[in-house]
Amino acid sequence: MTWTYKTGEFHPESLLLQESLFALANGYIGVRGNLEEGLAGGELSIRGSYINAFYDETQIHYGEKLFAFPETQEKLVNIIDTQTIELFFGVEEERFSLFAGEVMHFERKLYLDKGFSERIVHWRSPLGKEVVISFKRLVSIAYRELFVQQITIKGINFDGPVKIVSLLNGDVANYTNANDPRVASGHAKLLKVIDVKTKKELQTILCETSASKLQVACNTRNWISKHATVLTKVHQDKTVATYETDLDQPVVFEKQSVYTDTRRHGIDLAEKGEKLLQDVCSIRFEAIAEKQEAILQSFWKVSDIEIEGDHRLQEGIRFNMFHLFQSAGRDDFSNIAAKGLSGEGYEGHYFWDTEIYMLPFFTLTEPSLAKSLLRYRYSILEGARERAKEMGHQKGALFPWRTIAGRECSGYFPAGTAQYHISADVAYSYIQYYLATKDSGIWSEFGAEVLFETARLWIEVGHFADGTFRIDAVTGPDEYTCIVNNNYYTNVLAKYNLQWAAKVYQLLKDTDPVAFDEIKQKIQFEEAEADDWMWAAQHMYLPYDPERKINPQDDSFLQKAVWNLADTPKEHYPLLLHYHPLTLYRYQVCKQADTVLAHFLLEDEQDLETMQASYEYYEKVTTHDSSLSSCIFSIMAVKLGNMEKAYNYFMETARLDLDNTHGNTKDGLHMANMGGTWMAIVYGFGGLRIKENGISLTPRLPKQWTGYKFRFRTEGTTLEVKVEQSGVSIKKLTGKGLSIKVYGEDYYISNPIFVGLQ
Amino acid sequence: MTWTYKTGEFHPESLLLQESLFALANGYIGVRGNLEEGLAGGELSIRGSYINAFYDETQIHYGEKLFAFPETQEKLVNIIDTQTIELFFGVEEERFSLFAGEVMHFERKLYLDKGFSERIVHWRSPLGKEVVISFKRLVSIAYRELFVQQITIKGINFDGPVKIVSLLNGDVANYTNANDPRVASGHAKLLKVIDVKTKKELQTILCETSASKLQVACNTRNWISKHATVLTKVHQDKTVATYETDLDQPVVFEKQSVYTDTRRHGIDLAEKGEKLLQDVCSIRFEAIAEKQEAILQSFWKVSDIEIEGDHRLQEGIRFNMFHLFQSAGRDDFSNIAAKGLSGEGYEGHYFWDTEIYMLPFFTLTEPSLAKSLLRYRYSILEGARERAKEMGHQKGALFPWRTIAGRECSGYFPAGTAQYHISADVAYSYIQYYLATKDSGIWSEFGAEVLFETARLWIEVGHFADGTFRIDAVTGPDEYTCIVNNNYYTNVLAKYNLQWAAKVYQLLKDTDPVAFDEIKQKIQFEEAEADDWMWAAQHMYLPYDPERKINPQDDSFLQKAVWNLADTPKEHYPLLLHYHPLTLYRYQVCKQADTVLAHFLLEDEQDLETMQASYEYYEKVTTHDSSLSSCIFSIMAVKLGNMEKAYNYFMETARLDLDNTHGNTKDGLHMANMGGTWMAIVYGFGGLRIKENGISLTPRLPKQWTGYKFRFRTEGTTLEVKVEQSGVSIKKLTGKGLSIKVYGEDYYISNPIFVGLQ
Repeated sequence: MTWTYKTGEFHPESLLLQESLFALANGYIGVRGNLEEGLAGGELSIRGSYINAFYDETQIHYGEKLFAFPETQEKLVNIIDTQTIELFFGVEEERFSLFAGEVMHFERKLYLDKGFSERIVHWRSPLGKEVVISFKRLVSIAYRELFVQQITIKGINFDGPVKIVSLLNGDVANYTNANDPRVASGHAKLLKVIDVKTKKELQTILCETSASKLQVACNTRNWISKHATVLTKVHQDKTVATYETDLDQPVVFEKQSVYTDTRRHGIDLAEKGEKLLQDVCSIRFEAIAEKQEAILQSFWKVSDIEIEGDHRLQEGIRFNMFHLFQSAGRDDFSNIAAKGLSGEGYEGHYFWDTEIYMLPFFTLTEPSLAKSLLRYRYSILEGARERAKEMGHQKGALFPWRTIAGRECSGYFPAGTAQYHISADVAYSYIQYYLATKDSGIWSEFGAEVLFETARLWIEVGHFADGTFRIDAVTGPDEYTCIVNNNYYTNVLAKYNLQWAAKVYQLLKDTDPVAFDEIKQKIQFEEAEADDWMWAAQHMYLPYDPERKINPQDDSFLQKAVWNLADTPKEHYPLLLHYHPLTLYRYQVCKQADTVLAHFLLEDEQDLETMQASYEYYEKVTTHDSSLSSCIFSIMAVKLGNMEKAYNYFMETARLDLDNTHGNTKDGLHMANMGGTWMAIVYGFGGLRIKENGISLTPRLPKQWTGYKFRFRTEGTTLEVKVEQSGVSIKKLTGKGLSIKVYGEDYYISNPIFVGLQ
Repeated sequence: MTWTYKTGEFHPESLLLQESLFALANGYIGVRGNLEEGLAGGELSIRGSYINAFYDETQIHYGEKLFAFPETQEKLVNIIDTQTIELFFGVEEERFSLFAGEVMHFERKLYLDKGFSERIVHWRSPLGKEVVISFKRLVSIAYRELFVQQITIKGINFDGPVKIVSLLNGDVANYTNANDPRVASGHAKLLKVIDVKTKKELQTILCETSASKLQVACNTRNWISKHATVLTKVHQDKTVATYETDLDQPVVFEKQSVYTDTRRHGIDLAEKGEKLLQDVCSIRFEAIAEKQEAILQSFWKVSDIEIEGDHRLQEGIRFNMFHLFQSAGRDDFSNIAAKGLSGEGYEGHYFWDTEIYMLPFFTLTEPSLAKSLLRYRYSILEGARERAKEMGHQKGALFPWRTIAGRECSGYFPAGTAQYHISADVAYSYIQYYLATKDSGIWSEFGAEVLFETARLWIEVGHFADGTFRIDAVTGPDEYTCIVNNNYYTNVLAKYNLQWAAKVYQLLKDTDPVAFDEIKQKIQFEEAEADDWMWAAQHMYLPYDPERKINPQDDSFLQKAVWNLADTPKEHYPLLLHYHPLTLYRYQVCKQADTVLAHFLLEDEQDLETMQASYEYYEKVTTHDSSLSSCIFSIMAVKLGNMEKAYNYFMETARLDLDNTHGNTKDGLHMANMGGTWMAIVYGFGGLRIKENGISLTPRLPKQWTGYKFRFRTEGTTLEVKVEQSGVSIKKLTGKGLSIKVYGEDYYISNPIFVGLQ
């Protein structure tokens, strides 16, 4: 089975795309797959390195600024570039470049099982020198701050001089595009170099952001396998180390770069980085790669998915899971940006994508990583409380629609701040984590506070009328329909939030009165509030249209004219880039799953008939312009018994980035879709559900596959589920035995079981 | 009766306010009432001169820019300042200033019947020199480009040297305030000096705007009543003319400034201005003032309003009418900005204010001026057609919510572009003009095209459902409730627009087939469209709530919670400066009259019971945070028989600026409210209505007044209506006899009539 994503030819026009696909990260550092040797000049390229949650503050400008519009936003900063290593051959100093001479062979590989990438080029220079060069690069998961590059140069018809120039460059800028709302529109130059120095072979640059005054340092050391003359130079914003030797034997050149930053390392970053580099500089690439592989192995052991009979699909799925794994923030400061650490799209902000699309994957494979992601939300709870106040509420927490360090960074509130559902989404992910892990510590440690504060928000924002609890003037997930009353998704998720806040209140009070009292004190919680939560949840208004037998997306959705999708030219998609929001708001047209997503997340709130009719209704008006849509339509199609649709929608998710089907992978990978791919298999085809009454599976097999296999971990037990035409095999890989429902029947999995396929 | 607005004391803290109140204009030039001699430094002052519709283009920045968001906006430019004339006394050259020495007497007057202002100061210098100085200033209506100042200086205990320094200054900037959405937030320095020169006594500055590349020139000449030594100097951005003489007799100093601009004068502005100045420079202030008075006299002859028994009210009303008259643009380029030419609030933009609040005044007093204002909309029709296309429509014209030269300048579309009703408002004003003047030429000249194109818009934006024609996703006049379905105001005005487009179609076809064919050709009009208009009008959905017996403001308004106005702290008004729009949108709370305004404009669409119940309902949830609100509540209160409310609301409008009740008159006068004052008397207390079946009056007398009198002109006839406790006298002042309904009875006014008060 395939463990390597590989491309065999070099196409300058796919440079930007390849930079995103070959991005490497470890949750802390992210480095796009730029070419070490540089470009010819004039090509479109986003040369980027990032530290998760390392941001600057930039001003948000408005044509008309109204009350409580955010004044500044946080923006992921393109940090000090250490990728550049230029190569020159011969006394003529012919510079290696894919844009000069002849590329006789080219291949580029991402080793999903080993966690590094490689590029091999057989090149003939304009004057005829032939060399084979291999570039390996790795962002270490074991050594958080470390990025390593290894270049191996072999002469084919040439053994003369080679010059290797390794740069460390602080003169960097962010990418901008004023006309695409999905990428940043200004503020390119955010980083100022405040110190550049070299000390023997050590190169160091220290930079500071313009407004947030955060610092980042990069310390670099090079190593070469044979004798070379070395010259190190300091320029205004960069350092240059030049190595000169001969190609009489293959030359191996290694570059180790260590990043440190204010948020993680406090002060004296350059010194701390130097020390960290000192600790690893004697470890060669192979040893680091070995450690990396061990980590990846243990990752795949609990998470691997196999599809029989479709190589390209298999490639897509593993590719997606690999990127999810390497992108997740692993500390309280960081989360998973919409584009991971692979690009600057959406300015490196964290959205609800994490909670609804990515956390299921981590919760069921790497629960400690999941918990860290949940803890991130707790770390910004205070800001969410303040934002709720700014938005006119007395109590509660309103999580920012997009943020890095906790500030609301949305400059267009109808499709930003108005998406109040994010607070319920956070609560949902906490509850799902708890149900999957039974880790009740989450409540006493920090989870109860989050649940209570989000529940309070709903009491604040909603109101009673006609015997129901209603929520007005919010935006649901569908960004083509903004500021509406009683968005079904928001109301049903809020209901769940309220119910569970009341449950956790009771649970904590009963099981951990000390923690309970502490929280009570801290947030000045009055016990009657819990009654209000239950009351509001019980009376939550969930719109239902008896004529169409569906849940209307909101109170006014069904009144509008239906957008004519059939006659909309192909080049007008995504609609948001071709129509004014008001035009979109006037029609029944959805960017993405909204009610259908709610039906997936909380399937027990409606009967199957309503979900079926709703699915059919919304499918006709949904463009899937959001990459968060198809996976949900796939999952729900399985539930509703339409395997053909399930398969087709799934196929749109699995290779979305690899095939660049949304056309904007250049700005970074679509992380939520990647999580969606995983969900489409495990929740969709596998039919996994995690509820209060236990875990259940209802596996289905698309006719296009001979079989598939997935793994997941729950309550410390790792299970492997294999689905074939003959039936479903479930076996325990690690941990204690576990009760589970399969097709509604109870099983206890200790020894493997086999159940006929339904 | 009072014809002079007067203030007797100088308060530095009311400087900004006085600058607006004493602003002078002629529809072309506007000059704020700044102090000639300057300030002490550090006082808040907006030193401003403007040319109507003279704008620069500035970029609009967005946090997130979506499709068809305007990229640039037009902004009224603060032009070359000619106001400054500094005075120095004695060999010590003591500079005259209200902030030094002693102000022994101060008075400032605006002569509403003469059209100029005067400031008289009896001043004792720090060293004890006493002088009385009178400053007169006049913006000439007869000579469009001319602004004149006259200073008379009389020595009281002093006859020594006096130095008069007259400046022309191109180093000017616009006023900015980043935190108030009602004033501009950036782009202060828009004008660049490109030529400065003097020629004998002529001083000339030529400037150009940064982006729109429009030019403005100012030519200035000074005149002094006795011999003086004169020195003229050119500086980088200004010219300075210094006059030195003695105060052995009173000195009269006059300064004439002539403005010319690219939009009106094409090229060679300095030369053209010089020529214009040449033509008037021998005419002294008194002669110019005489001409001005004659124009004012003929204005008041058709428009004056008298209130018996309330001096302050009388002052407010005449003050408002004077400003309306002097602010109205008199050419195709210009209209009436929200603040007239008295300040930079709302960046000098034209809104629907003109059509709905100001045009009635002009239509019924100065119809040629009204027609010019209507023609302005025609001059930007092409842009409105383009904007409709940008907004996703195949046909029709969508007028910009705020503009100068026709471009949509709204940076916040939910309370901007989404206010589609402006297109119906424009149509409404055309129809009202036609009904009042019977000038059917308006249709063939340009009006039919406007009516047809706006009617087309409604067909585009609306849709048929459940047997009704519905309009979704628009914003009505109430800016605290945005983007809704079936806003009653919008629907009922659109209905009127559609009806009349069909009527005018028939009228023009029957009466002027040549003009009809020309328009048909030009806009590729298909005759079936007129059927669609009638059909849509007949089936227009007008929301009605049978339970409350009111017209809901829109489909979802009544579902929302009611804002608790009683417990909202006084300092939280206007709400828009203290609550996020989303908070406001979540509640039943109105910034201004919306449905109530629709009931006034189209009173035959609902029965009295519905209007009565609606009035009571909306009154409870309306803050009147908009200055466009109280006058409408006053008018409708009269109709509904509540004279107490009518009086109280009226009293909020009449002196809104004089008493600065909204606290922001510093940014300019509230022109719409001024028009509203007039409407509140003529349409409100007078009960005037102009409909297809004729003109009617139902005068009522508030118990607070002994009587009132108003005039209006219709079909060339000027009538005067006098309302007293004894009864209503109506007499014809000029023109032919006229049929009119009074209290529902038909009268023919040729000789005066008298009808008992009802």
